[in-house]
Amino acid sequence: MKKPLITVLSCVMILVCVMINSCYAQDKRDSKQLTTNSVFPKGSKINNDNFKGTAYLKMLIEADSVNPTSIGNVTFEPGARTKWHQHPGGQILLAIDGVGYYQEKGQAKRILKRGDVIKCPPNVPHWHGASVEAPFVQVAVTNRHLGETVWLGEVTETEYKN
Amino acid sequence: MKKPLITVLSCVMILVCVMINSCYAQDKRDSKQLTTNSVFPKGSKINNDNFKGTAYLKMLIEADSVNPTSIGNVTFEPGARTKWHQHPGGQILLAIDGVGYYQEKGQAKRILKRGDVIKCPPNVPHWHGASVEAPFVQVAVTNRHLGETVWLGEVTETEYKN
Repeated sequence: MKKPLITVLSCVMILVCVMINSCYAQDKRDSKQLTTNSVFPKGSKINNDNFKGTAYLKMLIEADSVNPTSIGNVTFEPGARTKWHQHPGGQILLAIDGVGYYQEKGQAKRILKRGDVIKCPPNVPHWHGASVEAPFVQVAVTNRHLGETVWLGEVTETEYKN
Repeated sequence: MKKPLITVLSCVMILVCVMINSCYAQDKRDSKQLTTNSVFPKGSKINNDNFKGTAYLKMLIEADSVNPTSIGNVTFEPGARTKWHQHPGGQILLAIDGVGYYQEKGQAKRILKRGDVIKCPPNVPHWHGASVEAPFVQVAVTNRHLGETVWLGEVTETEYKN
């Protein structure tokens, strides 16, 4: 008579353990995934050779004659990055989600995480993108009044993984 | 002999129901609360009379002689808002979290939610802040090269709640 009770209790304990694991596993966001709160739309896949790997762009604000600031939301899939490039008006990067890399010529590569900000001076060659294993979402704030982006060479695998 | 089994099963059902409720209640973010992913630091409480109610500012990027763009993260508690004001260089607002209000002189008040963007033209009087019941987090992108913010009058309760 005790057997059914023990069986039921055992099944219940297993069920409870599975539920606990499932419930709290949702809280542990996989660092290789973006959170569900990447804030801005992903936009369209970028189809030009200034980006290596898969990246998406959603222009949030276009520059115009009264306000030369353009703002774009870029999502890099793991391994994706820009070429080396520079901006005549400088650029500000706001890290929105994921894990990214940023490097200026002659400086060490930096790891960017949500909440980090970068101010890249005018005409300084740099590159940015996702980390090897995690995607990266950034908002780029670029003043266009001094000219457009100047694209340079590709980021080598050695530079990317350094 | 069946009584203990029934009792155990009943207790277990209650426990399972409580756990399900607790687990999935976490997913239902209260719209009156910010998500846990407000991206940027909250910063310090704003202590000047250009803001009504409680608001916090974290300057992310300061303007300088080579890049006139300043970027600040502002968190408004429910009911908090700026005074009417205008920017000689215009302003861009990026809604990061919560529910906010934005209004330009002569235009209808707009409701802002995460992912919304606003481009306010230069020298247009406007105000922004949290909604009545929910907090609001915005990133403000302001070009300072044409001068600083010009603060105007308070937003009346009628204007705020219209």
